[in-house]
Amino acid sequence: MSQKISYQQLYTFTNAVFSAIGCSEKDATTATTVLLSADIRGIDSHGIARLTGYIRLWEAKRINATPDIKITYETPSTAVVDGDAGLGLVVAPYAMQVAIDKAAIAGTGWVSVRNSNHFGIAGYHAMMALKHDMTGIAMTNASALVAPTFSTERMLGTNPIAVAIPANEQPPFVADFATTTASNGKLEILQRKNEASPLGWVQDKEGNNSTDAHALKTGGIMLPLGSDREHGSHKGYALGSIVDIFSAIFSGASYGPWAPPFPAYVPMPENMPGKGLGHFFGAMRIDAFRPADEFKQHMDNWITRFRNATPAPGHEKVLIPGDPEREMELIRMTEGIPVNDSVCDELDAIGKKFGIKL
Amino acid sequence: MSQKISYQQLYTFTNAVFSAIGCSEKDATTATTVLLSADIRGIDSHGIARLTGYIRLWEAKRINATPDIKITYETPSTAVVDGDAGLGLVVAPYAMQVAIDKAAIAGTGWVSVRNSNHFGIAGYHAMMALKHDMTGIAMTNASALVAPTFSTERMLGTNPIAVAIPANEQPPFVADFATTTASNGKLEILQRKNEASPLGWVQDKEGNNSTDAHALKTGGIMLPLGSDREHGSHKGYALGSIVDIFSAIFSGASYGPWAPPFPAYVPMPENMPGKGLGHFFGAMRIDAFRPADEFKQHMDNWITRFRNATPAPGHEKVLIPGDPEREMELIRMTEGIPVNDSVCDELDAIGKKFGIKL
Repeated sequence: MSQKISYQQLYTFTNAVFSAIGCSEKDATTATTVLLSADIRGIDSHGIARLTGYIRLWEAKRINATPDIKITYETPSTAVVDGDAGLGLVVAPYAMQVAIDKAAIAGTGWVSVRNSNHFGIAGYHAMMALKHDMTGIAMTNASALVAPTFSTERMLGTNPIAVAIPANEQPPFVADFATTTASNGKLEILQRKNEASPLGWVQDKEGNNSTDAHALKTGGIMLPLGSDREHGSHKGYALGSIVDIFSAIFSGASYGPWAPPFPAYVPMPENMPGKGLGHFFGAMRIDAFRPADEFKQHMDNWITRFRNATPAPGHEKVLIPGDPEREMELIRMTEGIPVNDSVCDELDAIGKKFGIKL
Repeated sequence: MSQKISYQQLYTFTNAVFSAIGCSEKDATTATTVLLSADIRGIDSHGIARLTGYIRLWEAKRINATPDIKITYETPSTAVVDGDAGLGLVVAPYAMQVAIDKAAIAGTGWVSVRNSNHFGIAGYHAMMALKHDMTGIAMTNASALVAPTFSTERMLGTNPIAVAIPANEQPPFVADFATTTASNGKLEILQRKNEASPLGWVQDKEGNNSTDAHALKTGGIMLPLGSDREHGSHKGYALGSIVDIFSAIFSGASYGPWAPPFPAYVPMPENMPGKGLGHFFGAMRIDAFRPADEFKQHMDNWITRFRNATPAPGHEKVLIPGDPEREMELIRMTEGIPVNDSVCDELDAIGKKFGIKL
């Protein structure tokens, strides 16, 4: 069960909570905007439902509310940013802005980030590039929940990739996806409904394909995009690995099975080879390749042609990456955001703790 | 049936064939090296088996053996290269070298290419970066054989992505994969054996999941990585789309269903929105992010840790992307390359045409 809460109400509440833990006004605003962009776009697992998790990390002193985020190394088109254990929701937009600023001068900008925390949805950061007529790229590693092909060990996070490409009259192309067959959020939906998961999403702890949506609680593991070797899971494993390496080895963050866990009650891995979580951002000026008008006209043509591709029987139309999230945004900004009863209870508890009313 | 032919024999023959169609000595050497790198690495569909196809494209005047390949636009970290309808096998290494040269100065280099043709295996070009202590990225669009999620129309090629990352004592990480569930090469193997394909590789022309490895001959279509919506095919569709856009819209090549076909007997699409096939290359200096020694030590640590991840029952070990191709290379350089009888017949025919003996 859930109740609908307006964006504005959630915004005011969340902003006050981030302020209460000591974030500056600017950082609280940024963190709130980034966090709730997930709820607006329908990615419920990464939005307000995670607020309690962030607060617990702060209580455990794993999140620094007043970080000194800075560039530690740079070349004309690259930089490494140290997030000083700040909220990823704040560190990521800082780093993406560095990528955008580099691209304005060098054509492209590429920024790898260490010592950060969860950054909300990758799509938000990639989309920051759009208003600058740039293509944006964002990715992050995350705590290990995913088995490489032929393994039963948790070695990679769901390691998402987002790519946002501007168009002209058409809305932009915005892909944002976990490099697993199904996102953790989709598993959580089935868990709440007590329904079975499709084969190919998870395996049990012995490595058998499983339909148990709760498999992760009994040593089971999520599967890389492709599900099994025959269906290309080695490609999903490679993609997740590339995200891990670009985000963490480029920057000096912790990687693979050593990535710090999101739940504050899970102890930190031993012998971590780097600092915190890592992210990777890219910005490419579209006019670093061809005149922006020309580029955007062809993107319109691409989008229109794909939208009009012959639909399969039983389907109305072919979607462009970003379509479902944009439709969801329209609905939720007018009708409100459905918030789970258990999440509402958690928000009440946070509110009581900090003396803030939802 | 097949016979084994030594790399040196194939090299001498192929080099002579490229020379016979008018390639300069340097270009013939490059084209031969790139083409046969597929055979050595076990990607039989992209190597010597395609030589006849390239020659037919030259005969149809779709390939220019003496192209004037040049940079048409550039910024400090980007360039657009026009391949002048040259062999992709020659255009691609030229463009990748431009990316590497840019990276040497600006930290990273990104090159989009138009007016090219098939470039062999993406992995070859990505791996060019390794000896410069750079991460290499290569991708290309290709003629449409793949349906977007919810569609029955051929809109995208198998659009591969390759990423090569240097290590220290460990061999490099080299991922090279089509953004479809199965590569066309794997389908061709089943076709030759007259075996059924696994569900999830192709659909028939009505959009039904099919096990017919010959489905493409009766209007069937290949499926994006993920196979169906429930297993993440929208992610494979997004990846293939990103490759198409970076390769062709960035550069001014032809995209989506308008990408030029490889078989010379297939007429060119009407109203093509750009010139030829497109590619996209990237090079990132590892010391544009952190000291190269440090980076490579952590890559060694990453590779060793993943190689030692707990294997699933029935599997000996977890593989690192690039392992199978490197093992194949060792075998084939000593034992020779198995060449299909039908391919041998084609090579004989080419040999007769140009007066060259295999």
